[in-house]
Amino acid sequence: ACLASIPVSDGLEQLGADGLYREILRDETVLRLKELGKISDGEGFLERTFLSPASFRATDVIISWMKDAGLTTWVDQMGNIHGRFEPSNSTDKALLIGSHMDTVIDAGMYDGALGIICAISALKVLRVTGKLQRLTRPVEVIAFSDEEGVRFQTTFLGSAAVAGILPESILQVSDKSGTTVQEALRLNSFEASAAALGQVKYSPESVGSYVEVHLEQGPVLEALRYPLGVVKGIAGQTRLKVIVDGSQGHAGTVPMKLRRDPMVAAAELVVTLEGLCKDPSRFLTYDEECGCFTEESLAGLVCTVGELLTWPSASNVIPGQVNFTVDIRAMDDLVRETIVASFSRIVMQRCDHRLVDCAVEHKHSAAATPCDPELTAQLKRATRSAVSAMAPGGHGHAGAESTATPVLMSGAGHDAMAMARLTRVGMLFVRCRGGVSHSPEEHVAEDDVWAAGLALLRFLDQHAVAEL
Amino acid sequence: ACLASIPVSDGLEQLGADGLYREILRDETVLRLKELGKISDGEGFLERTFLSPASFRATDVIISWMKDAGLTTWVDQMGNIHGRFEPSNSTDKALLIGSHMDTVIDAGMYDGALGIICAISALKVLRVTGKLQRLTRPVEVIAFSDEEGVRFQTTFLGSAAVAGILPESILQVSDKSGTTVQEALRLNSFEASAAALGQVKYSPESVGSYVEVHLEQGPVLEALRYPLGVVKGIAGQTRLKVIVDGSQGHAGTVPMKLRRDPMVAAAELVVTLEGLCKDPSRFLTYDEECGCFTEESLAGLVCTVGELLTWPSASNVIPGQVNFTVDIRAMDDLVRETIVASFSRIVMQRCDHRLVDCAVEHKHSAAATPCDPELTAQLKRATRSAVSAMAPGGHGHAGAESTATPVLMSGAGHDAMAMARLTRVGMLFVRCRGGVSHSPEEHVAEDDVWAAGLALLRFLDQHAVAEL
Repeated sequence: ACLASIPVSDGLEQLGADGLYREILRDETVLRLKELGKISDGEGFLERTFLSPASFRATDVIISWMKDAGLTTWVDQMGNIHGRFEPSNSTDKALLIGSHMDTVIDAGMYDGALGIICAISALKVLRVTGKLQRLTRPVEVIAFSDEEGVRFQTTFLGSAAVAGILPESILQVSDKSGTTVQEALRLNSFEASAAALGQVKYSPESVGSYVEVHLEQGPVLEALRYPLGVVKGIAGQTRLKVIVDGSQGHAGTVPMKLRRDPMVAAAELVVTLEGLCKDPSRFLTYDEECGCFTEESLAGLVCTVGELLTWPSASNVIPGQVNFTVDIRAMDDLVRETIVASFSRIVMQRCDHRLVDCAVEHKHSAAATPCDPELTAQLKRATRSAVSAMAPGGHGHAGAESTATPVLMSGAGHDAMAMARLTRVGMLFVRCRGGVSHSPEEHVAEDDVWAAGLALLRFLDQHAVAEL
Repeated sequence: ACLASIPVSDGLEQLGADGLYREILRDETVLRLKELGKISDGEGFLERTFLSPASFRATDVIISWMKDAGLTTWVDQMGNIHGRFEPSNSTDKALLIGSHMDTVIDAGMYDGALGIICAISALKVLRVTGKLQRLTRPVEVIAFSDEEGVRFQTTFLGSAAVAGILPESILQVSDKSGTTVQEALRLNSFEASAAALGQVKYSPESVGSYVEVHLEQGPVLEALRYPLGVVKGIAGQTRLKVIVDGSQGHAGTVPMKLRRDPMVAAAELVVTLEGLCKDPSRFLTYDEECGCFTEESLAGLVCTVGELLTWPSASNVIPGQVNFTVDIRAMDDLVRETIVASFSRIVMQRCDHRLVDCAVEHKHSAAATPCDPELTAQLKRATRSAVSAMAPGGHGHAGAESTATPVLMSGAGHDAMAMARLTRVGMLFVRCRGGVSHSPEEHVAEDDVWAAGLALLRFLDQHAVAEL
């Protein structure tokens, strides 16, 4: 019961008869998702952060599943779990398939885990069908120890170490209790030195590509009624903080025309920002020559005000200060930078007009990460093949009502962002219910889990398995 | 040093020679404001709440000043301090002059105190000039024990008791520590029974009018460059809470067109509310026949969003819920009710349009309190007389550059609201720096304190002193 495994040594013929491997790619994968989803540091909710007690219980379970898939396993000096099949006589570069094993607080059970378990399941199918021996290149599943960054407020500790972009200074970063990354690693018998970090790093020459399966965390595939989508890239991001200072006053005594109200000024900016991102062509110059602001480059643009604080925050006081966060993401870095510049200019214009004092602070910027077109095309073919094999008439994938595989942008960050610094990357998104993630309400239909595993299997077939 | 008093028995002739009584109405009044402003329960800031230790130290000081003005003093069963001069053989109804002795936390030294001390000073001038004996009616200064309502979260404990509108149930209301009004009164040797409350109440037959001097707490007089203004009434008020529910989501993964973002919906409503109140004639039907929405009735309309809360309040999460407070005040109750109805209708329209769910909760409503036209006219005459007597050429009031006495609406609540239930009321506002109140930055120029005392003195002269 501890290790969810369905015996597959018997009835192998029957199992693979339709080429869909439902018992492994659906039933067992779902059982394992549920099992991993119960391994938590929290009581009654899922929380599994970097190097936590639960993370080591999860490590044992994941290693056992990797072994069950015929892989050679080890844990590296940053706590990442590796499961690798090394074909004899292959000189090809490795295909890495990964996702993260850590979670947010009060998490869902699919975020990260889905990508790890689907990959193990696809390789298990290769094992039980005897195809593992026919791999033309090394294939390695990696369960990254930290992507969410909950404990140390710094994301991608695991994948950034593998990609070789984690600075040594990270060892001195502290969590809330004052424990540094170095101390946390040493408490768990890791070396925690610059040299050890260096050992975690993969050389670009040894790696051919990185592929990641992840739940979408958004509503697009659900809206398109399609179980899977390929990712053309991960959006770049800018985070701003806008501070609006006005004149605090009594809500009853200051006439409307004498007010310098930062609340109304901020509200006006929030509405303006939405307009900029919802209908950017109204604000941005469209340049056919450079091709920068095409319909396509503008389509993935999203802008969010997630937090707005009023001070002193009393119903009968005109606020003295209002500040709010701005999160702007786009696939096209030039689009994002143009929106940031336009918004900053509008802030100053509107604030001048209202006689309030505004400041725009840049908190964070990251460029977009494009996915590799060839890998993406392969994932797209594999997806089409998997979904049509499951389509009505056969074992029937109920949810797929269109035929073209959707191509999405990822607005969320993923380990693939770090891995793109090492090698070319490709990503496959899986439909989730209501677009909900980072919540116990997170849900992926069992048939969609199956479709993801089957698509990954067919991708492996194309990409790394020799024809007979 | 404990009781700030300037000896006035000598040089009486000289003191009153110009009719301005600077030593009492300005210098001594300012000294006493500073002295009372130091009597605090807080260390390094002013806090003096209902029945606090500091409130009893303040009581002793105020009683000594009332006695110095020739008044008979007592403290009633709600802790209000009374100082009265009862002319022999007068059957006229009493003139009450009051304000409150309690403060907010980290208060300024003028709010409440200014009205009490100015009244005592004006009566002291009557005493030293021998006019007290010529009063045609009883005149009584009252320092109300609670107006701000900081301790028991219920305003006007003092004045509502005098007006006879305080319900018996108030005795059972608790402060944060769990002490009830009744227990707090008994701890300080008050009777704290329904019968005792009944004794505090004045009969309408015994009172002819109530007058209050108060700092404006707004910027209008400063903008008009005039030290004093008369109040035509205290605004009615409606407090709403607007709750906007949308779809919480990841800031990177939900396309703009699939969002149901309560932040943007709320921001739009905040901007719309400002438009409604800043330019109501654009939204409201103007009816010449009923005369309800005249320029004048709309002029005092103010709307404020003082508090806005986002949930879950993270920069990378589209909020699931945003709620905000709305405070609407107007002199004309029909205007206020129409604005409330229009805004509520707009909330529903906009929310429907954005597919978010909105609720408008009514938290509080109070009708406007008009001031008595005759008292207001007398206060206006007294103000004009005082300001022109101080004008350049004489002892010069530097700040008065216009000649018509401003007529203001009070957007803030005052003891006069409670006292209006007992008798006709009139109010005089005093200019404050920057419109700032409820803050240690609260400031009234010394010449403006003087102007207020002189205007009150001239009002007493007209209203209650017999011609020789």
